[in-house]
Amino acid sequence: MEIIKTAKDMQAHAEKTRMQGKTIVFVPTMGFLHEGHLSLLREGSRHGDHLVLSIFVNPTQFAAGEDFESYPRDFEKDAAAAQKEGVDVIFAPEKANLYDDDFETYVSLEKLPNHLCGLSRPTHFRGVATIVTKLFNIVKPHAAVFGEKDYQQLAIIRRMTRDLNFDIRIIGVPIVREPDGLAMSSRNTYLAPEQRQAALSLYRSLSEAQNMVKTGETRATRLIEEARRTISAFPENSIDYVTVCDPDTLEDVALIDRPVLMALAVRVGKCRLIDNMVLHPAG
Amino acid sequence: MEIIKTAKDMQAHAEKTRMQGKTIVFVPTMGFLHEGHLSLLREGSRHGDHLVLSIFVNPTQFAAGEDFESYPRDFEKDAAAAQKEGVDVIFAPEKANLYDDDFETYVSLEKLPNHLCGLSRPTHFRGVATIVTKLFNIVKPHAAVFGEKDYQQLAIIRRMTRDLNFDIRIIGVPIVREPDGLAMSSRNTYLAPEQRQAALSLYRSLSEAQNMVKTGETRATRLIEEARRTISAFPENSIDYVTVCDPDTLEDVALIDRPVLMALAVRVGKCRLIDNMVLHPAG
Repeated sequence: MEIIKTAKDMQAHAEKTRMQGKTIVFVPTMGFLHEGHLSLLREGSRHGDHLVLSIFVNPTQFAAGEDFESYPRDFEKDAAAAQKEGVDVIFAPEKANLYDDDFETYVSLEKLPNHLCGLSRPTHFRGVATIVTKLFNIVKPHAAVFGEKDYQQLAIIRRMTRDLNFDIRIIGVPIVREPDGLAMSSRNTYLAPEQRQAALSLYRSLSEAQNMVKTGETRATRLIEEARRTISAFPENSIDYVTVCDPDTLEDVALIDRPVLMALAVRVGKCRLIDNMVLHPAG
Repeated sequence: MEIIKTAKDMQAHAEKTRMQGKTIVFVPTMGFLHEGHLSLLREGSRHGDHLVLSIFVNPTQFAAGEDFESYPRDFEKDAAAAQKEGVDVIFAPEKANLYDDDFETYVSLEKLPNHLCGLSRPTHFRGVATIVTKLFNIVKPHAAVFGEKDYQQLAIIRRMTRDLNFDIRIIGVPIVREPDGLAMSSRNTYLAPEQRQAALSLYRSLSEAQNMVKTGETRATRLIEEARRTISAFPENSIDYVTVCDPDTLEDVALIDRPVLMALAVRVGKCRLIDNMVLHPAG
């Protein structure tokens, strides 16, 4: 396994690898790898013969006051896990290698960010679209793998890839959960034990909604009311949003007569958690 | 010479060409080729062994009321000229092939567009940066060639290429002028004979400024005053801007103690013309 630190070296490596006829599969992450990330690597290895993992905590997707500085990092542990998963290259640049002082070019979308997390994090997806564009140009992959846990991010990257004509296949991978249902997240490490109990209400409310829909409920408002009740039962929880929306456009849906996305974001103490589930109506 | 009409076919061709070890050089244009474009092709052919010309009048860089519909087009003549210059591929997509109805992703810069033409055309460079990003991802060139006539565009593309880590060398080519000094432009075809005389004042005012600087003038205001006088002597002319600025940042310069860019935009009748020159102080 090779560790590459600069964009220039990574591009030279990618070019050489492509010229050897190999298929590059790319898994971009912010590191502090958990089972969710490992599932991306495992899925990725099925789609090509050269697996590149990037580890970079991207400053442009954090707003002032968010947890850029405190975001958990553990490169040694990540490298050991990556090696075990058969990663060929870790691309781990320094911030200064990717962002010059006079950096001024951004990739942004006009519609998809105006929903869900984009409403409370107005510059977040501009930062995501920009770093993913940069990483695509640096790693030069044939395919790239993203988790469905960050559902809106995946939708935005699919749209951006199509709109900007990146010749890259985007692969989505289902959420990986702890045995008790909590969606895996690097930020789970922030949770104190009693917060951890409160956090379980996210998955529970999604599962309840799935059951309601399966047994005939077609009103989005009813699902949202129930989920809000389940989550608010814990005083540690503060709801950012609970939404039922179209899985492609992310626009609100009132009547559930086809598969819909239920997505939610909740602050548990200082920790902001997200989760989602596609709900399939009965019949 | 091959003519390719869709992004998908162009990407497949580019991939095949790269895998053969060839170097792709790309010259993006809006067609209606003149000697200026041909000089880009000639310079391009020095930098690689596979020359791709794109012809696409890009709607997203025209604002409402600008000349998108009336922009001159002559594909047959362009194709004949391209063949003569040794072009390997013309990429000539339809608008619907590059922009879906729900297109929503744009590339934009925060500083360089806030000068010169960007002030009167506020969405123009967003359209340019977006289409160039798309074309880079479709044509997959090793190098791309742009004219210095569109100086601000070239500066923006250089910055964007660096900021977004495109692994593409950007080559600038000097302005080509008619024997009387008028900078070549597809829009010159709009000029009536008397307007054409008025249009010569653009080059004349730049040449006068160069002479003033060579003989010791260091005050930008004096150059601008003289140029405005020269251009305004023609009632057909209406000045958009006359600016003396830093060649890299495009920020206004007051004291000329190093090379500066003098740039101007003038409406001659309905035709908006631009021209520029880098002025070198004496000694």
